[in-house]
Amino acid sequence: MTVQASSTARVLEGLRHASVSEADRWRASTDRSGYVSASAPDGVVFAESADDVVTTMRLAAANRTPVVTRGAGTGLAAGASARSGEIVLDLSRMNSILRIDPVEQLAVVQPGVLNAELNAAAGEYGLFYAPDPASTAICSIGGNIATNAGGMRCAKYGVTREAVLALQVVLADGRTLRTGRETLKGVTGYDLNALITGSEGTLGVVVEATLRLRPLPVSTATVAAFFPDFATAAAAASAVIAARIQPSLLELIDGQTLEAVDMALGTDYRSRGGAFLLAQTDGFGAYLEQDVLIEAIKPFATSFEKAADAEEADRLLMARREAIPSLEKLGRVSIGDIGVPRGRLAEVALGLEDITARTGVRIFTVVHASDGNLHPMLVLNEEDSVTEGPAKVALGEMFHLAKRLGGTLTGEHGVGLLKRDWLLPELGEVSMDVHRIIKDALDPDGILNPGKAI
Amino acid sequence: MTVQASSTARVLEGLRHASVSEADRWRASTDRSGYVSASAPDGVVFAESADDVVTTMRLAAANRTPVVTRGAGTGLAAGASARSGEIVLDLSRMNSILRIDPVEQLAVVQPGVLNAELNAAAGEYGLFYAPDPASTAICSIGGNIATNAGGMRCAKYGVTREAVLALQVVLADGRTLRTGRETLKGVTGYDLNALITGSEGTLGVVVEATLRLRPLPVSTATVAAFFPDFATAAAAASAVIAARIQPSLLELIDGQTLEAVDMALGTDYRSRGGAFLLAQTDGFGAYLEQDVLIEAIKPFATSFEKAADAEEADRLLMARREAIPSLEKLGRVSIGDIGVPRGRLAEVALGLEDITARTGVRIFTVVHASDGNLHPMLVLNEEDSVTEGPAKVALGEMFHLAKRLGGTLTGEHGVGLLKRDWLLPELGEVSMDVHRIIKDALDPDGILNPGKAI
Repeated sequence: MTVQASSTARVLEGLRHASVSEADRWRASTDRSGYVSASAPDGVVFAESADDVVTTMRLAAANRTPVVTRGAGTGLAAGASARSGEIVLDLSRMNSILRIDPVEQLAVVQPGVLNAELNAAAGEYGLFYAPDPASTAICSIGGNIATNAGGMRCAKYGVTREAVLALQVVLADGRTLRTGRETLKGVTGYDLNALITGSEGTLGVVVEATLRLRPLPVSTATVAAFFPDFATAAAAASAVIAARIQPSLLELIDGQTLEAVDMALGTDYRSRGGAFLLAQTDGFGAYLEQDVLIEAIKPFATSFEKAADAEEADRLLMARREAIPSLEKLGRVSIGDIGVPRGRLAEVALGLEDITARTGVRIFTVVHASDGNLHPMLVLNEEDSVTEGPAKVALGEMFHLAKRLGGTLTGEHGVGLLKRDWLLPELGEVSMDVHRIIKDALDPDGILNPGKAI
Repeated sequence: MTVQASSTARVLEGLRHASVSEADRWRASTDRSGYVSASAPDGVVFAESADDVVTTMRLAAANRTPVVTRGAGTGLAAGASARSGEIVLDLSRMNSILRIDPVEQLAVVQPGVLNAELNAAAGEYGLFYAPDPASTAICSIGGNIATNAGGMRCAKYGVTREAVLALQVVLADGRTLRTGRETLKGVTGYDLNALITGSEGTLGVVVEATLRLRPLPVSTATVAAFFPDFATAAAAASAVIAARIQPSLLELIDGQTLEAVDMALGTDYRSRGGAFLLAQTDGFGAYLEQDVLIEAIKPFATSFEKAADAEEADRLLMARREAIPSLEKLGRVSIGDIGVPRGRLAEVALGLEDITARTGVRIFTVVHASDGNLHPMLVLNEEDSVTEGPAKVALGEMFHLAKRLGGTLTGEHGVGLLKRDWLLPELGEVSMDVHRIIKDALDPDGILNPGKAI
């Protein structure tokens, strides 16, 4: 082992469930962003309770030791990547669903619970947890809260922030802060739920969350449509929004990505069109709303098909669920996450083609079209870096493209290490200063996830 | 005029649109909470632009002069009540709707725009602004943001926080902070939109807001039902939630309030039942959802009627809209705002009866039943104080009742001056400390709305 800083050694010695094994340390040096760390953290603490977290933070505070909180390690911005001189606080063992209250429609969970596990448990009561990142099967609620994760249903049902009712948070000095409450409404004090949600582990460690559940829709109508190209599909998506309906899901997939899915799964999506739009409406009027939706996309589509049942809907959804795994078979994937006003998706498509032409980086794109959140995915050779060279240039140009169109650097994945260079151009000096003074106020020694997010 | 502090005189002298008239000063000493101030502020600045606000804050900062920001003055917690030694920054003249973007479904407005004005303008595009305080006709968007205002449609469509996409905020030192963005999703940096929303003028002055609009529902179904008493109506409301449907409005009115409405309007609500529940469902499946809703309430109701058209629905809604004005004819009204878990409404009803029995204060209650937010309204004699004596005792007991049931002091009105005594018991020491350090970080001299909210 190579404990480089004596402060980390003192902390690790004082804790149960601490590991300094090479395997644990290197595993905690990265996530699923494609980021490769030059060093590994000095040790990993596997917390099993809120008390373990309190003890860790107290010791870390006393020794001014940097602490990187980690959930399931499925982050896409290197927000939980740790390096030499830091210790990792791994919460994956804190994975109990403590309570589901079907009357109040809420769940109380530990941070290590997986998103899909919570949804399965809620489903037994006819309820669901709305935020649904594509990684639902493998990502944890703690990580979802750290990044204010979104997903496919957000435009209709809200992102993680809208689902967080209350949190229990261990602060940098080891004290436990309770934010929010179990009631749906409440305005006593500042909105500390929202301040912690999306703060990427820089303001505190979430050890318990009370989350809003919603009634499962009584019916869901699914339609899939093919278009000659991405720009036409984007125009169709804009027409859906302009028709003033509220799809629960509106996913756009470009032709290249369809090709990759076909190669991975043996399907024939690409032969049916140059872009694919998947739309769901739900609730008591799902099919009536679907009729209006179909009228909106018809002028643009070359073909469409309605799902006859849930199984067929699942099969249509597969192209979207399997997009990233299919691309991962082609090389190292770095997933962009820009957001733009919904009416400007077609312009992004053109801009991305331009970036590929100039950088030589292949870009595959899937889009949450109902909220203008695009995931342009760079597919690199395994030996290529995501933090320098053409990939870095392409990521930078993607950000500037989004900014030019009135958009944002990151819709739902977070800033982490990967996107820090573009924070200032998006936020501006005053905002950066406000971020710094809030961070300094809550974590004066800067020990919580240093160098990330802000 | 009685300018008591030389710092305020220096600030007022340096500003355009400043008034030291008795009328303006005393008007700015209170709001609609029933709070009576012992003194008036030293002057009122009627800002006409963001630049006026910047100039005011720069001068105030240089002179360490306390500034109380004021919108339409319709607050219910004395959050904008100002006193001697303070100046008031009145934003009611900044009342332009700057832009409505029907494609992106958003509006950019100045803070003095009234809630109902925005809704009328959005309606021309088939859109609406979801937060709908009962005071929609007279309350301003700036005040709605300051208190994170709710209303009747919140359980389905979210409170003000969910509608705020971006803000332009003048900080205590006169710098302008931009928070958020125009895209629906975005996680670059901390959620400063949410930190400012609901901060009751203690962290900055909102001079422009970008707000999410939503498509007007294609249809709305309204049903009104009568019940023998409040507890039975509360049980019916709980049954609606348990049926896992999502009413867009679920308002409960107790028998005493119906009586007051009848006296004011010459209606006959009270003779038809001891409590009244008004329920709306909306969207493509509004009537299908209404069928399920009616099945849920039928076992509890003595009678019900469906609205045949929008006019009839408006007539049914009148009892709710006119509740507060009707009570104001009976005396000085102080409006409580507790929130409890939705399944515990009947217990609150019993608890409120108890409080009346012990304090002698008459309590009339209306409830946003779909989110457990109750407004128990104390009706006092005109000469009675809301900040001491039986009213204060009753408000305190209401808070303890809510807390005992797992609820909150304030669901949507804010803390202001009136509810500060119960902040600590609700939030706890650690949270209070976190509030203080955030406030100190952003407003080190404590000049923004001192003594309010936190």
